Amino acid sequence: MAVDYQSLAVPGVRALSPYQPGKPIEELARELGLNPSEIIKLASNENPLGPSDKAMAAARKALDEMCLYPDGNGFNLKQALCRRYGIEMDQITLGNGSNDVLEVITRCFADADSEVIYSQYAFAVYPLVAQAIGARGISVPARDWGHDLDAMADAVTDRTRLIFVANPNNPTGTVHKSDAIEAFMKRIPEEVLVVLDEAYCEYLTGDEYPDGLDLLERYPNLIVCRTFSKAWGLAALRVGYAISSPAIADILNRVRQPFNVDTVALAAATAVLDDEDYLKRSRDVNEAGLRQLEEGLDRMGLLYIPSAGNFVTVEVGEDAAGIYRSLLNRGVIVRPVAGYGMPQHLRVSVGLASENERFLEALSEAMITAGEEG
Amino acid sequence: MAVDYQSLAVPGVRALSPYQPGKPIEELARELGLNPSEIIKLASNENPLGPSDKAMAAARKALDEMCLYPDGNGFNLKQALCRRYGIEMDQITLGNGSNDVLEVITRCFADADSEVIYSQYAFAVYPLVAQAIGARGISVPARDWGHDLDAMADAVTDRTRLIFVANPNNPTGTVHKSDAIEAFMKRIPEEVLVVLDEAYCEYLTGDEYPDGLDLLERYPNLIVCRTFSKAWGLAALRVGYAISSPAIADILNRVRQPFNVDTVALAAATAVLDDEDYLKRSRDVNEAGLRQLEEGLDRMGLLYIPSAGNFVTVEVGEDAAGIYRSLLNRGVIVRPVAGYGMPQHLRVSVGLASENERFLEALSEAMITAGEEG
Repeated sequence: MAVDYQSLAVPGVRALSPYQPGKPIEELARELGLNPSEIIKLASNENPLGPSDKAMAAARKALDEMCLYPDGNGFNLKQALCRRYGIEMDQITLGNGSNDVLEVITRCFADADSEVIYSQYAFAVYPLVAQAIGARGISVPARDWGHDLDAMADAVTDRTRLIFVANPNNPTGTVHKSDAIEAFMKRIPEEVLVVLDEAYCEYLTGDEYPDGLDLLERYPNLIVCRTFSKAWGLAALRVGYAISSPAIADILNRVRQPFNVDTVALAAATAVLDDEDYLKRSRDVNEAGLRQLEEGLDRMGLLYIPSAGNFVTVEVGEDAAGIYRSLLNRGVIVRPVAGYGMPQHLRVSVGLASENERFLEALSEAMITAGEEG
Repeated sequence: MAVDYQSLAVPGVRALSPYQPGKPIEELARELGLNPSEIIKLASNENPLGPSDKAMAAARKALDEMCLYPDGNGFNLKQALCRRYGIEMDQITLGNGSNDVLEVITRCFADADSEVIYSQYAFAVYPLVAQAIGARGISVPARDWGHDLDAMADAVTDRTRLIFVANPNNPTGTVHKSDAIEAFMKRIPEEVLVVLDEAYCEYLTGDEYPDGLDLLERYPNLIVCRTFSKAWGLAALRVGYAISSPAIADILNRVRQPFNVDTVALAAATAVLDDEDYLKRSRDVNEAGLRQLEEGLDRMGLLYIPSAGNFVTVEVGEDAAGIYRSLLNRGVIVRPVAGYGMPQHLRVSVGLASENERFLEALSEAMITAGEEG
């Protein structure tokens, strides 16, 4: 009898459904027979500005080294991070996007006997990485679409190894202020690691929000994760990082693949950290775009979750899947969030003013006609 | 009392020493105060030709998409692989270098209760990925520096989940012919997966060597791994892949990170598959370089392991560490292989003719003076 090879996979993997990324423009163009230039993608919380000139110049130059392995230690990028954030080289773990960092952390500190805590409606990668190693994922019910930090602290048991806190959270855009995060950290036993995922932190403005790096000194069980994929505009190149105590970073660096960040990515990330103007424009475009989207949704009378990120998650009702398809037919890609347990919402990334306008128009039409298009 | 965070790591990870990559040129330049252009690196089995023009053009164009996430399905690259190798899209798993693929395979099909078999002197990543998940790694003594395939088959037990076979093998350059691999496959129970690592297969010439893809139809427990880092010249960009049955690929694709191969890497790899001229020149330069190195070593009266790869592993004697340092002082980076249990050998990658010559000269000097330089 033929062997069922899928049954040979380890139990956590056997039950795994892969992460569903946003639909690529090329894929939709193929499906609809459209020209890719007619399509706008507001599905993956990407930076709508286009590349930083400094990042582009550095990336082009780095291509000359195409045949050589990357610097596995990421010396230049780590130096640049140290200069910018006042940290030490040995606190840094580089990753192939922050997805890689989140996975490496989980594999280092949790196993099939562990519990891993995260919030309902939090980033889909947390349950996936926990499940892949057979850990028990504990999804704590959200409060007002955001993390219920008290309930998450209450959920800690002897088996808890990791807690993921996304601040701001994707896909809901909710955020906690400094006092709430600090009160939470005080409640967590010091042998339980807290992963503070700050993928969207560059969009926060105002002193009331925490900077994970300030907390690191007081809470050695904290790991702060960040990415170059959002405000820094390098999603294509895959660079994320963790900042932690040197002891934790040493463990993480044993498990990460030695060349997990490639040469072009290292060069671009190093260069973009010096591009203050790009960061400022990213923030400005996002702030204006958030207002534009919120005003447009207000005009349509649609409810949305107030967002601290570069996206808005809007309640479009029971036929969200139909609205999504109707938007696709109009060449507008947004993100369904039914997989997050939010079947009546769609998430739209903040684009340029013209893209936001096109989305609002398409949504307005789709809300009327989705049912008919079936 | 302060928590020892390293003790919180899972057991396999706690005992892990990370992979030691070849020393980057920039790092040596910093240490010795040299200009990077004065240094040659023959330490990482990189392609000495420099980039393929087609890969470079595609990579440069892809940089325009820097802000957008990669195509997580790698549609274009998979299509190109299908055209070239006569396989189907659903047989392919893309990886961030073949290191990623090897790790994903291990995490999918082995756990702390498993045994994973590999050869003494085989690629260092096999024991590392096994240990990270707490599996028992079984290192089978080599025969004439190569895999003892009979002994590896004999080592299979009820707990064996995976067997890694590198053909050609790194760092020894040994290779098995078709009949030997086929005889081995016949002996392996069909519920034990065999990972045939063909990272160096593009350098093989002659019908007597196996093409893993030919074996796939007859052996559904086979997974063939390949890379763009060697003959295709894309080490900086990190692209590898596995080819297997669709059932196995489906499992692997659940665990790989959704954006594990970046946009520039996907574009360059897709383009280089059409660059037959580049591949031919890679092979020609390698064949000529291998002869040049072998003749030079013969003249010095040094023993080396006959190699089917793009490197030669040469016996320099008890002071291999001293010879290595002496070569570094001369601006020549090779690879010590003491970590592979070969303390009297050094591995040198095939370079351009001028680089091979410079290595041979430096080695000749170093063999005389290493003791004095201490």
